[in-house]
Amino acid sequence: MKYYVGIDFGGTSMKIGIINEEGSIIIKNSCVTDPNKSGDDIIKHIAECTQKVINNSKLPQKDIMGIGIGTPGLLNPETGVLKVAVNIPNLNGIHVTKGISDILGKPTFLDNDVNTMSLGEFYYGAGKGLKHVIALTLGTGVGGGIILNGELYRGASFTAGELGHVSISRDGKSCPCGNNGCLERYIGRDGIIERFMVSKNKGVETSIDKYLEDGEVTPKAIAMAAGDGDVLSIRVLEETGKILGSVLATLVNALNPQAIIIGGGVSNAGELILGPARIEMMKLAYSIPANDVKLVRAELGNDAGLVGSASLAVANLK
Amino acid sequence: MKYYVGIDFGGTSMKIGIINEEGSIIIKNSCVTDPNKSGDDIIKHIAECTQKVINNSKLPQKDIMGIGIGTPGLLNPETGVLKVAVNIPNLNGIHVTKGISDILGKPTFLDNDVNTMSLGEFYYGAGKGLKHVIALTLGTGVGGGIILNGELYRGASFTAGELGHVSISRDGKSCPCGNNGCLERYIGRDGIIERFMVSKNKGVETSIDKYLEDGEVTPKAIAMAAGDGDVLSIRVLEETGKILGSVLATLVNALNPQAIIIGGGVSNAGELILGPARIEMMKLAYSIPANDVKLVRAELGNDAGLVGSASLAVANLK
Repeated sequence: MKYYVGIDFGGTSMKIGIINEEGSIIIKNSCVTDPNKSGDDIIKHIAECTQKVINNSKLPQKDIMGIGIGTPGLLNPETGVLKVAVNIPNLNGIHVTKGISDILGKPTFLDNDVNTMSLGEFYYGAGKGLKHVIALTLGTGVGGGIILNGELYRGASFTAGELGHVSISRDGKSCPCGNNGCLERYIGRDGIIERFMVSKNKGVETSIDKYLEDGEVTPKAIAMAAGDGDVLSIRVLEETGKILGSVLATLVNALNPQAIIIGGGVSNAGELILGPARIEMMKLAYSIPANDVKLVRAELGNDAGLVGSASLAVANLK
Repeated sequence: MKYYVGIDFGGTSMKIGIINEEGSIIIKNSCVTDPNKSGDDIIKHIAECTQKVINNSKLPQKDIMGIGIGTPGLLNPETGVLKVAVNIPNLNGIHVTKGISDILGKPTFLDNDVNTMSLGEFYYGAGKGLKHVIALTLGTGVGGGIILNGELYRGASFTAGELGHVSISRDGKSCPCGNNGCLERYIGRDGIIERFMVSKNKGVETSIDKYLEDGEVTPKAIAMAAGDGDVLSIRVLEETGKILGSVLATLVNALNPQAIIIGGGVSNAGELILGPARIEMMKLAYSIPANDVKLVRAELGNDAGLVGSASLAVANLK
């Protein structure tokens, strides 16, 4: 059996785990690092945390094939250099993969977390056994990973799959990216809440209050209310699906994938979003590729980041 | 020197030619076949026409590496079977590549003409030296070919790049494909003419009449009038570019290509369409991939079909 280490690096905190060839997690742990340390010391600390997990697994060193790191920062997956780290400026410009592999003696790979999560679903989740897959993550942000002919496709400047900034309306909501009408502004976490609140503040009736934690409207609360029949919540999620589906239709025409996999926190609303998304996608896409694609939820859930990171090592070492 | 045969198969008539490794045409000819013959006899006739071109080239048989066929019909590029031939029903279901290679003794490949033209531009035209290229053909129809990591990407059911049927408006113009708002209905030949005529028939002033052949408004006449300053013609081509650019922006975000290459008869309007398309694309696309892509005209002109077909052999035999 071969084993792969995944580091789901969220900033100062990270999850570290080991998967086997079937994608099952053998062991996992988490670790917090001090952002005030030097870049080299942070790398040393990540390596130590990882070594501890490897030691605790009691697996033979030789069966650990490599290490994959997924992170939301800006980076170069070919060189393994982190350009802009999230919450740890001291890591900016650090050659992360070299640092880790020099200490641990294992081939190490780095990519953005949306790409690694896509690889995880491709190898071990909803995309298992397929060749052409688009994975979308709906959460605070909206991101995508594109796998074609069994390989992660990164593009000329490693931004392929940047679907959160597809503009759906040239005069639409302004986005911090500088553009208008970005998809993320409508179906990302805040976009969904905003659309809900606009109606609620206009006095549209809703039973949402029953579902709030700390009085805060969240996509989770909206999904719960919708599940119990709250009409406004259902409508807001339907709209979300419809907007998503219209963009997916274009991707279906362009890329003729076998599956589109939707993950991230917002996707927990499940068919309340995916149902309308599927209808809109089927309506707007060309019939041949539309009939050959399935639109499904991601399967890896809370482990998506960890399994995904390890999958990056799988992809590079297979 | 290695040589490749291209057959640009338009239906009953075809162009046949040979290119060298640099994409230069060594010899070319055309041939008309009788649609009433049996499928096998038509294949035999295509092979004879091809053999004649090879003989006339005086090239050594051993230097002819293979044969590529591009055609607008429906087909399976993996098996080489033509499913629905244009204007020659007797060829439906015929294993074209096997038929030709059995007679001529050369490896033979089949793909749709938009894909082959994209390969031609990729190897020998505006995409030379690049890795990630999207090629669009604007003519009666609007089609696309996608080359990623140096390979033609076909998708799950060989419809990748079907960009003419991207819906730009869910309640837009109806399309024979059954959908509404297909890009082709707005910026294909008829779509452009239709938008022009709507304004002309409303009495908007235009000097178009000076540029008409046989009294018929065509994209060519509109481009000529626009080139001479006709305000309505300029506006119609600007609109065309703007619509094109909005779809290109989504492709730029999704695929982060190095170049988008625009060919086909309508593209002869050049910067009158590409200028506004570029502005809209840059406005709506995410800044990183937008700054790394160039939007340019195809370079192969009238030989695009022939060089493209031969390029299919290059792609398969390199």
